[in-house]
Amino acid sequence: MDFAYGPGRNHLFVPGPTNIPEHVIRAMNRNNENHRTPAITTLTKTLLDDVKKIFKTTSGIPFLIPTTGTGAWESALTNTLSPGDRTVSFLIGQFSLLWIEQQKRLNFKVDVVESEWGQGADLDALESKLASDKTHTIKAICIVHNETTTGVTNDLTKVRKILDKYQHPALIIVDAVSSIGALDFRMDEWGVDVVVTSSQKALSLPTGMGIVCAGPKAIEATKSATSVRSFFDWNGYLKCYNLGTYWPYTPSIQLLYGLRAALDLVFEEGFENVILRHKRLAKATRLAVEAWGLKNCCQKEEWYSASVTAIVVPPNIDSGEIVSRAWKRYNLSLGGGLNKVAGKVFRIGHVGHLNELQLLGCLAGVEMTLKDVGYPVKLGSGVAAASAYLLNNVPLIPSRI
Amino acid sequence: MDFAYGPGRNHLFVPGPTNIPEHVIRAMNRNNENHRTPAITTLTKTLLDDVKKIFKTTSGIPFLIPTTGTGAWESALTNTLSPGDRTVSFLIGQFSLLWIEQQKRLNFKVDVVESEWGQGADLDALESKLASDKTHTIKAICIVHNETTTGVTNDLTKVRKILDKYQHPALIIVDAVSSIGALDFRMDEWGVDVVVTSSQKALSLPTGMGIVCAGPKAIEATKSATSVRSFFDWNGYLKCYNLGTYWPYTPSIQLLYGLRAALDLVFEEGFENVILRHKRLAKATRLAVEAWGLKNCCQKEEWYSASVTAIVVPPNIDSGEIVSRAWKRYNLSLGGGLNKVAGKVFRIGHVGHLNELQLLGCLAGVEMTLKDVGYPVKLGSGVAAASAYLLNNVPLIPSRI
Amino acid sequence: MDFAYGPGRNHLFVPGPTNIPEHVIRAMNRNNENHRTPAITTLTKTLLDDVKKIFKTTSGIPFLIPTTGTGAWESALTNTLSPGDRTVSFLIGQFSLLWIEQQKRLNFKVDVVESEWGQGADLDALESKLASDKTHTIKAICIVHNETTTGVTNDLTKVRKILDKYQHPALIIVDAVSSIGALDFRMDEWGVDVVVTSSQKALSLPTGMGIVCAGPKAIEATKSATSVRSFFDWNGYLKCYNLGTYWPYTPSIQLLYGLRAALDLVFEEGFENVILRHKRLAKATRLAVEAWGLKNCCQKEEWYSASVTAIVVPPNIDSGEIVSRAWKRYNLSLGGGLNKVAGKVFRIGHVGHLNELQLLGCLAGVEMTLKDVGYPVKLGSGVAAASAYLLNNVPLIPSRI
Amino acid sequence: MDFAYGPGRNHLFVPGPTNIPEHVIRAMNRNNENHRTPAITTLTKTLLDDVKKIFKTTSGIPFLIPTTGTGAWESALTNTLSPGDRTVSFLIGQFSLLWIEQQKRLNFKVDVVESEWGQGADLDALESKLASDKTHTIKAICIVHNETTTGVTNDLTKVRKILDKYQHPALIIVDAVSSIGALDFRMDEWGVDVVVTSSQKALSLPTGMGIVCAGPKAIEATKSATSVRSFFDWNGYLKCYNLGTYWPYTPSIQLLYGLRAALDLVFEEGFENVILRHKRLAKATRLAVEAWGLKNCCQKEEWYSASVTAIVVPPNIDSGEIVSRAWKRYNLSLGGGLNKVAGKVFRIGHVGHLNELQLLGCLAGVEMTLKDVGYPVKLGSGVAAASAYLLNNVPLIPSRI
Repeated sequence: MDFAYGPGRNHLFVPGPTNIPEHVIRAMNRNNENHRTPAITTLTKTLLDDVKKIFKTTSGIPFLIPTTGTGAWESALTNTLSPGDRTVSFLIGQFSLLWIEQQKRLNFKVDVVESEWGQGADLDALESKLASDKTHTIKAICIVHNETTTGVTNDLTKVRKILDKYQHPALIIVDAVSSIGALDFRMDEWGVDVVVTSSQKALSLPTGMGIVCAGPKAIEATKSATSVRSFFDWNGYLKCYNLGTYWPYTPSIQLLYGLRAALDLVFEEGFENVILRHKRLAKATRLAVEAWGLKNCCQKEEWYSASVTAIVVPPNIDSGEIVSRAWKRYNLSLGGGLNKVAGKVFRIGHVGHLNELQLLGCLAGVEMTLKDVGYPVKLGSGVAAASAYLLNNVPLIPSRI
Repeated sequence: MDFAYGPGRNHLFVPGPTNIPEHVIRAMNRNNENHRTPAITTLTKTLLDDVKKIFKTTSGIPFLIPTTGTGAWESALTNTLSPGDRTVSFLIGQFSLLWIEQQKRLNFKVDVVESEWGQGADLDALESKLASDKTHTIKAICIVHNETTTGVTNDLTKVRKILDKYQHPALIIVDAVSSIGALDFRMDEWGVDVVVTSSQKALSLPTGMGIVCAGPKAIEATKSATSVRSFFDWNGYLKCYNLGTYWPYTPSIQLLYGLRAALDLVFEEGFENVILRHKRLAKATRLAVEAWGLKNCCQKEEWYSASVTAIVVPPNIDSGEIVSRAWKRYNLSLGGGLNKVAGKVFRIGHVGHLNELQLLGCLAGVEMTLKDVGYPVKLGSGVAAASAYLLNNVPLIPSRI
Repeated sequence: MDFAYGPGRNHLFVPGPTNIPEHVIRAMNRNNENHRTPAITTLTKTLLDDVKKIFKTTSGIPFLIPTTGTGAWESALTNTLSPGDRTVSFLIGQFSLLWIEQQKRLNFKVDVVESEWGQGADLDALESKLASDKTHTIKAICIVHNETTTGVTNDLTKVRKILDKYQHPALIIVDAVSSIGALDFRMDEWGVDVVVTSSQKALSLPTGMGIVCAGPKAIEATKSATSVRSFFDWNGYLKCYNLGTYWPYTPSIQLLYGLRAALDLVFEEGFENVILRHKRLAKATRLAVEAWGLKNCCQKEEWYSASVTAIVVPPNIDSGEIVSRAWKRYNLSLGGGLNKVAGKVFRIGHVGHLNELQLLGCLAGVEMTLKDVGYPVKLGSGVAAASAYLLNNVPLIPSRI
Repeated sequence: MDFAYGPGRNHLFVPGPTNIPEHVIRAMNRNNENHRTPAITTLTKTLLDDVKKIFKTTSGIPFLIPTTGTGAWESALTNTLSPGDRTVSFLIGQFSLLWIEQQKRLNFKVDVVESEWGQGADLDALESKLASDKTHTIKAICIVHNETTTGVTNDLTKVRKILDKYQHPALIIVDAVSSIGALDFRMDEWGVDVVVTSSQKALSLPTGMGIVCAGPKAIEATKSATSVRSFFDWNGYLKCYNLGTYWPYTPSIQLLYGLRAALDLVFEEGFENVILRHKRLAKATRLAVEAWGLKNCCQKEEWYSASVTAIVVPPNIDSGEIVSRAWKRYNLSLGGGLNKVAGKVFRIGHVGHLNELQLLGCLAGVEMTLKDVGYPVKLGSGVAAASAYLLNNVPLIPSRI
């Protein structure tokens, strides 16, 4: 029934869906339940409380929506904006592109601010737009925190500063799909109004839960937002929150228990340790890339992503061949290049429930795959560079000391 | 972590989410995978082919959407209709009501045809509306096949006949959430244009997959439908179907394997046998209700539902007490009364992967619960009535003969 | 892969293997681990401590042996006795017979004290044997606490009293395979020297762990016991206990975690509540049997078993047909008659993680099966009798009040 | 509940228990069943047929015993030999030592033929013993095929040749615990009489099933073997095989389904491919060891084991520190040194369901651990050496071509 059986484990290094820890698989290994019992109500309450911690918000209200990241985007937009509203959106990769296309389909007027793929959002352009927008026609700044296509992370504190500088009331709506739970994200401190993530990334769950967290300004905006919405409407949730029933429609019982287990693991490891672990694996990956003589698609250190690294291949090599070969020969799942960078980059996702030796196995597999496709890498070079760094930076596992 | 532990198994008799067979739980007990591999593509293809069989369609195109029934409704409507379009919708219970509310929110003009709760759709009213709609202002007939609130199943062949009689081009859009996979449903033969179901009902999966099947007229309608849609847009799927990539965004790997297992079980049992089993359990339930001296909320035999029976309690009894008591004392999950019938009916869901002794255990539990809340039922009476019928109608399990 | 698929759940009412709770299935759903880590050592320590609670012993030492009940028997005997040693053994059913055969094969001289099957151990015979055994040639009394063949439970306090009366030093070695974890068993208070149980009975685990608990006198006896033993030798365990390594050979990691979960469930429910639940289900079963006009194989109330009821069928009926029919038509697994009572009794196991409605479903199935094989039972009669009793005796589930 | 949680997967490289594939974990994720149904009988029959294929025997009879390897040893010995019988046994490591101790405890007269640990069995000594044993006092040659302590594999064809040369009727009894399913083993061709393995090694199952395969001469020997045996007695099995009931006592339902899945995987991959994969991973490991400047405990190439490599550490390093450190810092489980080689060797198990990148991750972890404990390894050197070999020898995954 697997259609493509291979011996040993699949080495899953796409930037989502990510590896599900055994604890979470176990927690989800269960029959359905009636979602209208006090048990599920109690469980839901703990989830709504605890999920806020990984957004670092106390004032935000989370919605656990049975959808994907794409649906969560739609939820963020339609609940806070009205058709014809002007947004500023940064095009820096495939996911920001798709989000911009969605914004257009939902009838917002989108000021697209494009950067070369591999660069972060052009915040100078934002500044000039805001500077000239005396009448506050711009209603929202839509920005991807971590662009999975290129491995670029934007600095959201700068966005906040620019808005503050011009006392501009636009909402900040953030796609944090591949960052929440992996990268430091401070919704309250940074003044982000809506944050969107989904279950199959750093939370290491199956796909199927879009998590949207809305701050007070965003909740206020729902009152005047006239975008048509039904399934994604927050008011349905808010009514149920008030009633203590929590669910406007049937949630996945399994994902609720799974999220409970996933959060428990985060807190057991310590959320700050989780963030450090992601930084560490990312740094190790970049050192390997350097050792291989390849270039990071992300052009500057300030944008380096802790959840995914996109690697530029030489012009004579098709990165799609790397992805295909890795899967067919080494049971290694890498991310391919998308759209503008199709054929030009491949990606190593180092997000979710991973450790050092898993990454080093992946890096060894990339080395062999590079050889396979004709790139003259020195075998062991990336692993050596990554190991040298990790050797000095991996802590002992606290529960085993 | 269960928040409400009780010894032994939970007896799950709400009309969804339903019991997940061990086979399906097993099939879903797995790590994530990259959804962009040939393995998932091949798997998806088998699912799209095989799921059509339970809709009994060859011309329909199925969409397996990461959402719930509510989202699947929205998908059916926004892909085929434009704001301001006139629909005829039958209000016969809570789910038809919620769907009508959605239709209104999505800016359709809804002709609501209400019946007393416990009755089927008023098709005479439909006939007069169609008779007088010479200019074909009515764009869609929206009808719930099986109203889960009241245990009422509408006869869709009659809807088709009326439309044909007046050669009316309106689409027939059907909520078959609690019927597909349990009841005989013949999309092609009945001339239904869009059918909506979801995973946690007869398919016995977790919540999280809305399945929409669209016939050729519905696909054609997408071209002119101007309702705003993004996440739910069928074109995103159709493009991917043509490309052979199948998924416009990340699906739940687990639900795909789960659906594969669920369909395999249906075919192993034989789909017609599954339908007969649902009829048999429903009939046994009704006989028990009769023996208890209680009334079926569904007022006529022609509307009796094979997936759920709603039972009217005497005026001095609060049906909510029955539901609460059954769960608290007997680990039995029954459906409560909703909206107009809140406090007045409770519901036994007999949909999904169930057998006779599971149902008889449930009926015995209902009997004790009825006693608990003061209704003078004769213990064993319902079980006896149901058993007497089952004794003559349960076949031997084919694989064990 | 199930070879005998049937819709809905299997109703498992053999007196072992018993139903595994979802919690325990989940806990066992895991990869192997190195059994030589501190993690497994810590886990093992908690198990050895906690398992004593269900034996109600503080002075006993438990051994968790990778074997079945048959192997656990052998372990109890060979560690405490020497070839040629005289034992008194009670033959009251198939399992006591098999144990006696084992004792003979292991070269003990067995005084077999036989009772009619359906009666308890003949303790008068024991008394006379002890009375005349002035020189203490009898080294051990071997007695089955709960004879699963006939649903007979022996009163072990009487055995102790008789030994005390004659100040006889013989060991009391008890097969408590189908009682530990279900029935009240007080190893210390009753002065039992060795107790044997196994995982697939009241503990609701898979087969594969034989649990032997040895009191101080039994441990002392190992020093002089010359029976040849290797795999089953307690000294191997005791050495490892002293070293803190715990395992003389590789244990099943999965069963260790499973036992942890199973014990956690026992303590969550409250062990005394577990015992009461078993009594309650047994009583309800007997009331059903009476209502059906059938006889309990167990001849006197003092011997009634709380874990299994053996039911005598009329002479014209083959109980094997009942077992076969129940499985083939109703997916109901009943216990058959063994040896002397083959064809004459069938058995309902009500041991392990079960609740009232599960039992009532089983009873309803037995009623239909009885009809199937030509016994003129009144349908619903057994369920009614059992329900009437349960109605007055089932407590609310504490966590749901 | 894991007592020692660490992020990411545990890297399990002890030579057993080994990694369980997801397929097998899924297959075992199930409730108990009555083991006395035709379903389990049918399943068992397929297992007994198919398990013979990995022993490469058609004339052997397999026994699937609920025990560990230690119990399986005992079963092999007590069913074929009588107290006082003379055996020749080779002491080449801890497991052969433990087996010899067992042979002594079971009252056989053991001619111990010791070799330096790191060498194979001294077959010259065997030859001289047989040459001088004109009266055939030697009843059995007991030999460990693959000594897990030292990573030494004995050539059994040579044993057969020596026996044949002297036309000596002694039985060949082989501990193949860490070889069956991983190494080429030809029971019939090599004339081996009894072979012993267990579930948690190459078969990649949980511990709990000892598998013994007995050839015709061994079955014949049971008739005269007077060793006391009960639980391990083959006659109990043989009687049940004849009756078609198969089980003298309750088997683990889960392990039966697990074995079915494990065998299915072996046949899907192709057993010869499984053997080649083990050889490949072993060779890669040895190349890494060489690159690290360390010595293989196994002294000659003819004895190199394909399932485990024991690595000698420099005198100033304690191999126990390596094992401890790897687990505490890198979540890597390595095998330690046992008895004579305690502190002197550590072991990499490369047996079971593993692939190349898993091994390379392990090797990278070993490199860092070596650095941690003060050995001046060049990071990446072992990975490079192993990769260079694998690059030229790993086939494409057949189902993915």
